Parts: sequence; structure tokens; C-alpha cells
Amino acid sequence: MATKFEAEYVVTMDDERRQYHPGVIVYDEREIVYVGSPQGYQEPVDREIVIPEGIILPGLLNGHNHAAMSLMRGLADDSPLFEWLSQYVWPLEEHLTPEDIEVGTLLACAEMIRSGTVGFADMYFEVDISAKAVDMAGMRAWIARGLDRADTKKLEESVEFCQAWRGHGHGRIETMLGPHAPYTCPPEFLAQVASAAQTYQLPIHIHLSESRDEMRQMAEQYHKTPIQVAYDAGILASRTLIAHGVYIEEADLKYLEQMEGGVVSCPISNAKLGNGTLPYHRLRNAGVAVGLGTDGAASTNSLDMFLEMKAMAWMQKLKEGKPEGFRAEDALWAATRGTAQILGHRGGVLQPGAPADFIVVDGRRAHMTPTWDVVANLVYAASGSDVRYCVVDGQIILQEGIITSFDERAVLQEAAARAQRLMERGR
Amino acid sequence: MATKFEAEYVVTMDDERRQYHPGVIVYDEREIVYVGSPQGYQEPVDREIVIPEGIILPGLLNGHNHAAMSLMRGLADDSPLFEWLSQYVWPLEEHLTPEDIEVGTLLACAEMIRSGTVGFADMYFEVDISAKAVDMAGMRAWIARGLDRADTKKLEESVEFCQAWRGHGHGRIETMLGPHAPYTCPPEFLAQVASAAQTYQLPIHIHLSESRDEMRQMAEQYHKTPIQVAYDAGILASRTLIAHGVYIEEADLKYLEQMEGGVVSCPISNAKLGNGTLPYHRLRNAGVAVGLGTDGAASTNSLDMFLEMKAMAWMQKLKEGKPEGFRAEDALWAATRGTAQILGHRGGVLQPGAPADFIVVDGRRAHMTPTWDVVANLVYAASGSDVRYCVVDGQIILQEGIITSFDERAVLQEAAARAQRLMERGR
Repeated sequence: MATKFEAEYVVTMDDERRQYHPGVIVYDEREIVYVGSPQGYQEPVDREIVIPEGIILPGLLNGHNHAAMSLMRGLADDSPLFEWLSQYVWPLEEHLTPEDIEVGTLLACAEMIRSGTVGFADMYFEVDISAKAVDMAGMRAWIARGLDRADTKKLEESVEFCQAWRGHGHGRIETMLGPHAPYTCPPEFLAQVASAAQTYQLPIHIHLSESRDEMRQMAEQYHKTPIQVAYDAGILASRTLIAHGVYIEEADLKYLEQMEGGVVSCPISNAKLGNGTLPYHRLRNAGVAVGLGTDGAASTNSLDMFLEMKAMAWMQKLKEGKPEGFRAEDALWAATRGTAQILGHRGGVLQPGAPADFIVVDGRRAHMTPTWDVVANLVYAASGSDVRYCVVDGQIILQEGIITSFDERAVLQEAAARAQRLMERGR
Repeated sequence: MATKFEAEYVVTMDDERRQYHPGVIVYDEREIVYVGSPQGYQEPVDREIVIPEGIILPGLLNGHNHAAMSLMRGLADDSPLFEWLSQYVWPLEEHLTPEDIEVGTLLACAEMIRSGTVGFADMYFEVDISAKAVDMAGMRAWIARGLDRADTKKLEESVEFCQAWRGHGHGRIETMLGPHAPYTCPPEFLAQVASAAQTYQLPIHIHLSESRDEMRQMAEQYHKTPIQVAYDAGILASRTLIAHGVYIEEADLKYLEQMEGGVVSCPISNAKLGNGTLPYHRLRNAGVAVGLGTDGAASTNSLDMFLEMKAMAWMQKLKEGKPEGFRAEDALWAATRGTAQILGHRGGVLQPGAPADFIVVDGRRAHMTPTWDVVANLVYAASGSDVRYCVVDGQIILQEGIITSFDERAVLQEAAARAQRLMERGR
């Protein structure tokens, strides 16, 4: 079935950064067949949706999340990091039931769909449950079970999970191995994970170079940077998604230049926890892909990638000390093609043959008026609340602000009730 | 006429930081008469509005704006600063008509009302027109005409404007003198402005210590910091609103400690232009009030104070290098009581006797669920688009998402058309 969307602007993010004003996008089943001016496509379609003041752009791809942690949004913010983890997050995680994980994941999906995210890379536990929830929500996800210590049983189960779910739903659900970080996984275990990744051809999702403490600890224990620890264990020989990368040094670049994958920046989390700002130009100049992610809502409080794009641009300009230090388009690239490139996904762009994953933003709100530059408006002025349509794999999962794939209201009520119970149990 | 609002939470921002859950606020004409639990107020009212999932908080106060510049939102972002000013902003400003100023100001008012701002300090030209527009929009404003070079005629006209408009609309419109900055106003002229401020008992609004260039220029020209230049000219002897204050040094504190007024931080503008981050703790430890402002939408792109609160918290935590370096409540304080204190305004707080200026935020959206901490949700998760009601001086100017004081749709269309004409004239 062919569907046509027509809007005031289409921002393709293709290699030539083409924009159409006005523009249309046509897709058939799960694939885009045309992007261009309205005049350029005269064939009949089965369904036509016109949003006169809309802006069509690729659906955003959140490169780092712990979706179910949305249930802990706002829990003891502003506390010192170790106190936050040891007194609040970890004790609460011990009480989490599989149903909590399901509801927390759906809560995250609701927020992401509403704010224009079509897919995300996730790391948490109870992955069978979250895979099922994401599948129902109609989103894309790259799901990894978090692995730590030297838990080989978990690694085996993780491989089983990956094999069972990879490519599910015409490829909407993909899987990864998720060794948490070099300070929670010993090098021998990292090597085991790396070996499994090679054997089963699985990509890897890992936290690296996030904090000063991590840098110091790796230097003391191994006389290495976290990137070097990962490299030496073979972790960078597979397609690997590195989350954070705040403290990547010049000396690390030789380990990254040849890798598949890349680094997902999480600027809000990195600022809010006081960690720092990823060296964007150092990485890009070395040819390393940089994507964008929110981290979990327990630390970032929001899964809105429009907010994350703003934060990325502001932090990078602040780091560079000049307005021309980073462009709006760089942020939009990271949130679409950057994350896609790291994941080896052919989305994040509007062009024939790409998956029908796109969103429509309302362009005629006060804060989006006037339009000198549509990309500047999207990155610096839009908020996730401006998203009116979200289309994933050809399915309209947000239609005029209504989530069509599940009962959002029920999920929000259930999430509020479950958080209340967790609060009471915690006392 | 007494009106009662009831909601799930009331966040008062009073000296004891009282919160009510659920809570009500009652006001009579222009003044709050009760804030507390629903049980605590049993008297009959003329009108009652219940928002079961709402959060009532003080209306936000934007301490630094150039409202009419909203017409230039997104104009040549990411350009080097001098190129942006000299090739884009200044040439365009030469073409601005009084009608452009009117429409630009109303566009800014629409965005501010929608995102929960009840009042703002403004500096621009054609102030009679902007005062009239703000008055019609039903907002509060502290309006200053920007003064530069040694234009004494403008200073005289500015004093006339201030005298004519001060206290207009039961005090909704207040006026200030607006010497632009020490790099655009020579010291003798600053002294003239300071003297006029004393004579006519007018507060002052000035840009100080915003950029490295300004610091260098003041050091070269006067061997002083910008704060010292202002102090020596007598500018700090009146109630003075200092915008930016990024580079305030220890040695400056002695000039600030005794002043009325304080410093309005503009974290998004300061990051986006690559300037830096205000030394919050240095100022607060010296007892200096710190408020919050957006700067004009030409540089910040957004007038959403919820976004500005996030940016303030993130930048300060980044500067401090730890999550506990700044608290959500500090940002909400700056955006309400901080700006109010600087302006000598008794708003920014919900308590009997305060002006009936408040907003209602929708608390049951996906990104606001669950509620571990209502202030954390407001600062870290809410966006301006979550504001459902905006009440200023007892008038409901945003009602269930509809602006009641003027025809928003017409303003947006007119703003888009005028920007289009400015684009064409600029070519």
C-alpha cells in the first residue's frame, strides 16, 4: 500500500542535504519510494496525508538508553553520584519486577514516540520483556542485556537472547552484546564477550571513557585508557557502539580509526552528572562516527532527542568557545545518520530505498516562527512536543499526537502506580 | 471576583519552599489571598477551575530579552559573531519598521505566554510600540530603550518614555534605563545615565562581562573590568539588572555586594555564542541575586524559560564537575524569585499578598511520569509546551492552551510574512 505525506518542508539529511519546500514523501509498505517536490510524483497512492505547515524529517535514533529506568525519572537528582547509585538506584533495582520493566519500557516508548524517536539502542536487564514491549510499541530497537563482573552464565543467556530476537519484526528488533564497562567487567571477561561477538556476528554496546573516576581507575589498574582496555580485549574488532566517550584522548584515536561503529555522545547526562563534553571535532577529524543518545531517564530525566540535539550544540560551542564551533546540522546529523552509521542501519535518511521511518513536526507554532532556516528551527527551537506524526517501518504509530500502537493512558497510570509502590517499598 | 484553582501539586517557592499535594490557590482581583491544601479554604468563590493532574507554580520571570528580535529567530546561526552582527543582524535592523517591532514583540509574547513566562525585562528600540504590545498581551514587562554611543537625545527621550509608562496597567508595565554596554557607551555617557537614574529613581538594565572580547577591550581601554567601569560611572548605585555576568571575577565582588539588583544569567546564549558560564556560586556566596533570562530569540532561538532552567542546571553542574554542584530548585529560584528580587518585584512566589501571577503545567504526560520529585520534573523534564494556563495580574491569558488576550494565529501569519519581506529586502 502506497502512502504519501505532503508538508511545507522535507529535510532529507541525504548526502547532498537536500530540502524540499514544499515536499512529499511516498512509501510503499516498509520502504521509501520517492522524496522530492510534489510535482515530481504524479502516480496514484492509496492514502494521502497533507500537513500544510509540517516539516518532514528522518525519525530520530537514540543511540544510548536504559529505557525501563524511566520509572526512576527524578529519583534523587542532584545527589553525589555514588550516593545516588548506592542509596537510591541499586536498592530500587533490586525491587524491580518483570512487570515494572515492561511498564517502564512502554513509558519510555511513549515518551520517545511522542518526541520523534523511531529507534533506540538499549541496555538493561529482563531483555525478553523489553524486546516484547518495544515490538508491541512498533518502534525499532537494538537491545543488549547489561553484563558485568565475569558472569559467563549471563553471557550465554545473552547470546541466546540475541539469537532468538535478532531481525524480529522485519528487522525492527536487533540485538547486541552489552558488556557494561571496563570498570565493571574484568579484561578476561571483556575478551570472552569479544569472542562471542565474533563467533555470533553480534555488535557490542559498551560504556567507555565517561568519567574522571573511570579514567583514573583504568590508569591505576591497567595503565591504560578505557578505550585501550577495550581494544586490547578485542571489543573494538566487532561493530561497537561506545556510549559517552567524554575523555577520549589523541592517543586513543589509533584504536578507533579503523573500527566499525563509533561513539554515541550523551551531552545532557554528561553535563548533568558533571562529567564533561565529548571531543567532537577530534573524533570527526579522525573519521570516527558520532551519534547521539539520551542515556536513561533516571540520569537525564528526558528522552527528548530534540532537547539532546540542543544540548549537544550548546556544549560543543561552549567547548570550542565560538558560535561557529558546531552547526545545527551537525546535531541533526548525529541524531539521525550518526547513530544509524554506528549501528550499521540504513535509516536516518529520507531517500528511495531507505526504511519508511520519519516524523512530522509542526512548523507553525509561535516558537517555530518565522523560518529563516528550517534546520536551525528544528535543532534550536523545536521541542519533542511539536511532533505530530511518527512513522516507523511504514506504520503510523503517532497520528496527530495520538499513539496508535498501545494504550498510552493505561501505561502512564500503571507507571505512576508502580513508582508509588516502589517509593513505599523503599521506605 | 475570587477565583480558585485546584491542582495535584502547588509549588509555592516561598521562603520555606512549601508544596501542597493536592493544593489550591485563591486570588481576588489581582492578588493572591490563599495558597494551601484544599481543606484549608472553604469560603465560596466566584469561579473554580480544577486541573486534577496539574502543577501550579509561580509564573516565570525572564530577566533579559530583546523581544522583537524573535522576528530574526534562526537568522544565520552558527556564524562567527562579528559576521553575524555586521552582515545579518544590523543590516536587517535598519529595515525594521515600527510595525515589524510590534509584530515581533507580539510573537515573543505569544511564545512566552505559551511557555509559562508572566513577565520579562526587555531592551530594544521603538519602546512605545513594544510597551503597547505587551500591555495588550496582558503580560508584565520592565522595558528599557537600548542606549549607545553618547546619544543624550536618546537618553532624554528614554527618560520621557520611562516617566510616561512607569506603573502603567496597575504596575504591569515598568520602565528602566538601558545603557547597552560599556563597549558601546563611553564612561561619561554611562555617568550621565547613572545620574538620570538617580534623579528619576529609575532602575538600569545593562549588558556586562559577557564575552572574552569585552573583558580584553575594557582592560586595554580602561585597565578595568566591565563591572568596575560600570561601578566607577555610578551605574551600580541604582537598582541595576546586569545581563550575562559570565566573566565576573573575585575582584568584582566588592562592587556588587552592596548593590540593589543583581545578575541575570543567560546560559543558552552564553553557550551558543561560545562565551562561557556564569560563576553562580561565587555570586551567591557573596550574596548577589542571580536571575535567569533567555536573551533575544535571534541568538537563543527560544524564549522557553523551562529550557533555560535546564541549560542553567546543566552548565553549572558541568562547570562544577559534579551532580551536586547545582540543584533543580536553584534553577527554579533563579527563574522566579531571583529575577523578581533583581527587579524589586514582589512576584515570583505564591503566597497571600503576592500578585496573582501563576501558571499550571500538565503533570501527567509521558515525559513527566512518574513524580518522584515535582521540582525535578519541572526543571529537568517539563517543556514550555506543557503549560496549560498562564495567569497574570489575575487575568487568565492562556486558558487550556489558548491565548485569550490577542489573536495569536494572526500574529504568527503576520510575523512569517514580515520575515519573508525582510529576507527579500535583504537580498
